[in-house]
Amino acid sequence: MSTGPVDALTADGGIVSIRPVTPRDRRAVAGLYARAAPENLRLRFFTWPTAATLATEADRLCRPQSPQFLAMAAYQGAELVGVASCDRRGEEPRGEFAVFVGDRHHGRGIGTLLLEHLAARARRHGITELVGEVLSSNADMMKVARDLGPDGRSRLDHGIVDVTLDTGGAAAREAVDRRDRIAEQASLRAVFAPATVAVVGAGRRPGGAGHEAFRALRDYGFTGRLYAVHPRGAPIGATYAYRTLADLPEPVELLVIAVPADRICGVLRDGAAAGARAAIILTPLGPDPDGRRRAELLRQARSHGVRLVGPGSLGVLSTRPETRLNAGLFPIMPPAGRLAVAVESGAAALAVIDHAARTGCGISQLVSLGDKTDVGGNDLIAYWHDDPATAAVALHLASFGNPARFARTVRELARHKPVLAVRDSRAPAGVDEMFARAGVVRTENLGDLMDAARMLTGQPLPAGHRLAVVGDAGGLVAAAHATTIHVGADASPAAYAATADAVARDGDADLVLLVVTGTRVNPAGKTLAALGPVVDRYPRLPVAAVVLGAEDVPARLGRRGVPIYDLPERAARALAHAAGYAAWLRATPADPPGTDPEPGPRALRGPASP
Amino acid sequence: MSTGPVDALTADGGIVSIRPVTPRDRRAVAGLYARAAPENLRLRFFTWPTAATLATEADRLCRPQSPQFLAMAAYQGAELVGVASCDRRGEEPRGEFAVFVGDRHHGRGIGTLLLEHLAARARRHGITELVGEVLSSNADMMKVARDLGPDGRSRLDHGIVDVTLDTGGAAAREAVDRRDRIAEQASLRAVFAPATVAVVGAGRRPGGAGHEAFRALRDYGFTGRLYAVHPRGAPIGATYAYRTLADLPEPVELLVIAVPADRICGVLRDGAAAGARAAIILTPLGPDPDGRRRAELLRQARSHGVRLVGPGSLGVLSTRPETRLNAGLFPIMPPAGRLAVAVESGAAALAVIDHAARTGCGISQLVSLGDKTDVGGNDLIAYWHDDPATAAVALHLASFGNPARFARTVRELARHKPVLAVRDSRAPAGVDEMFARAGVVRTENLGDLMDAARMLTGQPLPAGHRLAVVGDAGGLVAAAHATTIHVGADASPAAYAATADAVARDGDADLVLLVVTGTRVNPAGKTLAALGPVVDRYPRLPVAAVVLGAEDVPARLGRRGVPIYDLPERAARALAHAAGYAAWLRATPADPPGTDPEPGPRALRGPASP
Repeated sequence: MSTGPVDALTADGGIVSIRPVTPRDRRAVAGLYARAAPENLRLRFFTWPTAATLATEADRLCRPQSPQFLAMAAYQGAELVGVASCDRRGEEPRGEFAVFVGDRHHGRGIGTLLLEHLAARARRHGITELVGEVLSSNADMMKVARDLGPDGRSRLDHGIVDVTLDTGGAAAREAVDRRDRIAEQASLRAVFAPATVAVVGAGRRPGGAGHEAFRALRDYGFTGRLYAVHPRGAPIGATYAYRTLADLPEPVELLVIAVPADRICGVLRDGAAAGARAAIILTPLGPDPDGRRRAELLRQARSHGVRLVGPGSLGVLSTRPETRLNAGLFPIMPPAGRLAVAVESGAAALAVIDHAARTGCGISQLVSLGDKTDVGGNDLIAYWHDDPATAAVALHLASFGNPARFARTVRELARHKPVLAVRDSRAPAGVDEMFARAGVVRTENLGDLMDAARMLTGQPLPAGHRLAVVGDAGGLVAAAHATTIHVGADASPAAYAATADAVARDGDADLVLLVVTGTRVNPAGKTLAALGPVVDRYPRLPVAAVVLGAEDVPARLGRRGVPIYDLPERAARALAHAAGYAAWLRATPADPPGTDPEPGPRALRGPASP
Repeated sequence: MSTGPVDALTADGGIVSIRPVTPRDRRAVAGLYARAAPENLRLRFFTWPTAATLATEADRLCRPQSPQFLAMAAYQGAELVGVASCDRRGEEPRGEFAVFVGDRHHGRGIGTLLLEHLAARARRHGITELVGEVLSSNADMMKVARDLGPDGRSRLDHGIVDVTLDTGGAAAREAVDRRDRIAEQASLRAVFAPATVAVVGAGRRPGGAGHEAFRALRDYGFTGRLYAVHPRGAPIGATYAYRTLADLPEPVELLVIAVPADRICGVLRDGAAAGARAAIILTPLGPDPDGRRRAELLRQARSHGVRLVGPGSLGVLSTRPETRLNAGLFPIMPPAGRLAVAVESGAAALAVIDHAARTGCGISQLVSLGDKTDVGGNDLIAYWHDDPATAAVALHLASFGNPARFARTVRELARHKPVLAVRDSRAPAGVDEMFARAGVVRTENLGDLMDAARMLTGQPLPAGHRLAVVGDAGGLVAAAHATTIHVGADASPAAYAATADAVARDGDADLVLLVVTGTRVNPAGKTLAALGPVVDRYPRLPVAAVVLGAEDVPARLGRRGVPIYDLPERAARALAHAAGYAAWLRATPADPPGTDPEPGPRALRGPASP
């Protein structure tokens, strides 16, 4: 594992670069101490240190490192914002830690990040525990200790707390993940729920990417303030276009960038100055054989603390009524709902949107990741973990930077809400198996995924695999564990409803599939009207419906919104996926041991993973 | 194998019952000879036989049978219409045959049927050749010899031809199949292309099956004459309803029966008297635990020479413009096209029709077989074999009377046109394997089947498996043997078309998949307009298209009608099915040895198979 710089998200969504301290950091470390308030220094040194003490400490921190001495620095852009170090005697399995964070950066979780990365290095040198003394009045450090989870122990003695941190425990890992998620949520809030958006490169020509992106945002009814930026300052419809980002009348949170590739870095710089926290880059990066342009773009974004979606993103959607964000080039919009979707290619995004619109599968948010220079699947998984608008997450990703790591974060998400992915025959051997163990609902294709998603958003989870098929036609559904109740081809709607009610009431079925066939003698609409109140009477019973032989079939049945499918096999598969997920959830302990081959703090790597 | 009676179709579509002669047939055989014209008797006996000769011959035919003597009788209803016999000495592998068919039944293929069934029995007794002398002036028997195929040899000597028939040869089998098909075509013409239809049980109440079936036929624009029959003679709309079938002003070819189950047999009798050759029975037969009602229904139908679809059929469709037959209760109609479909359940019929309407998959004919008391999958396979309106056949059958037999007839059909079936996990082990060898395109589900059918009707067959994917978006198609050509997300329609043209022209691809993604910047419609002329320039290259990111996408591209799919995976699967079928066709010899475990004439068994 490299000890080069890694980018990490702070609790407020900022980005810091964390790396081992080197002798060249001597001046920055001295400056960090020089700028610090006396009280901050006292909390670190337990007294008010003299200039000489600080100089000695800076020398100590910046000396060459060894298994007996490790030190990490956190930079934000060019500014050193914190340091952490660890000393041990000989080969003993415990080291003594010390942390110092600059005054203005307290409360951002930088101490926690430093300690996590320090712990990760320490563990690789055989150090299993970090110990340190913290003044009980040092609220920030006490919070760091709490953040690092129940693996940390503490003991109070005369106003000094001995803090002990386990460098490899599962609880520490979980704490890391939780902290990552909180940071991601802060960081990606600017992507999904910005108060202000500027489209940069929004020219006057219809068909131009910026122009169209601006219109898409406006037409879908973005609820925040929307600005157009274009060097020639041309009006777009009735909207004034600002010549530069600097001209905007207020800070802007999200940039939608449609300028030529060679101008993107400049826009990021200007955008950061104008307050931007995130950018969606629609422009493809173009040929970049050695990855240099991509690396430079990431470096720029990091130095300005701006999160990137893209380049080459087709856009980001949020259907939430309080946002209504259509930031991209999608020609049609899916219905609003509770499935969040991450895809790489624009084509996959369009396929998902088409299919969602066709099947009535509601979408909460959708991200076309494009090149994934910064934001990738892991970031979105962390973001959606606690997003109340998202009941299930679909991933359509072609690559995973670190499948084992990815599987662990996915597994954690899957314990909270269903995660769906298309089974990929091109994925490396074992990936599918790993995803299965991570509880990912793996479908054969995108159509199946959307079908399963409709069953896994807004419907209760089945308590078992016992399926009852109730229908007015036989011979169509082949499913394991199924009991078929044939109500008769000429059953009246009331008779059908009575049978369905009896099946739901007697409790012998964990899932119910209603098959309604419409003929000229027995139109489907009447049967559906009779079945709606039945399914509403059993809100905790998972139900799917199939309607054959009818036009203009509604997408859902009853007030509870039982999904209606167009083929029995599709409904049966969706139900099977729901049952499979529920079974995994029942069988999976909250904190399985030994599932993570590489524990440690997650970093925003460049290029991002997955 | 039973030697009980089997029903067989004559060349003109009639039905005869063929079984071994018994002593109780003595009187009927004597009657057959007594009614015969002298010239007919001379052709059989080579002279004008006396009454005593005929009585001796009748005794001979009706004596108890043994491996040294076999005789078969063909009855039409109660009338004996022909006999055939075979004598051999000891255990020798050859027998001498004789055939006699009543005067009025010449030219109907009854002699051929009798000889086929005789040969099948003879083979089971170790007789490999049937030999006989035929007067060269006996045109009918010479035709029988020709009908029995190239396995038969003949030698002319003084006006007498020695005819030798191989009882087990592949060519004989093929001749049997060909003859069966011709008979089926004649027999089922009344089902698919009747000149006159009577709906029996067509009451005045909307929602009644007969009423609705009548309206369906009328509303879809049946091109023949349409009659309503109902005992109370009530008017249906502006149409007069006849009280009985006997009241109809002209003979009627097809009955659509919606009367209660206990009145069906009476309707068949009256219908036969009114000229009916076929009936579609919409009424379910109801509880029939010992199968007696079904057997009686079949017996009645046979005795009246009426073919049955059903009972419990949802109906029969033919979209051919010269017929426009919607004889059933289907609430919606599929587009016209070249896929013929046989299904058992009404629900499957509705699923097919829904899906066809949704995907634009054109249907030539569709049959809901219901209980398959008479007409089954084998009959339809024979019918569609030479049907010029049908380019491919889809089978959605839950059971196969004799899978080996079925596989052979399917295989023969598959050599002429693609046969598609949904893979059935409930089918007996080996069935899927047998279908694979029979060249059946087996799909995972009905949706896949319709997708493949669109590629296999009206599109050329691919010469190999080399797939070129041309698209303005990457990362979506996973297919073996595929080359991907990315035209660039911002390619103009003209640039896309030029690339597609180059790929088609250079001949390195056996199949081409065009992936068109529409965005707000690059609407799909313009790209499709540019691609239409390209695909039309290469009519012999199999092409499929996918359009993502667009509403109101047409079903087909270009004048040649390249199918457009909504997901790349669906198009890729359809192309793979087409390539697989074409490969099977190339690899399959015209007449493989040893594929049929039970050669012999096909019979209309009761209950019908499959």
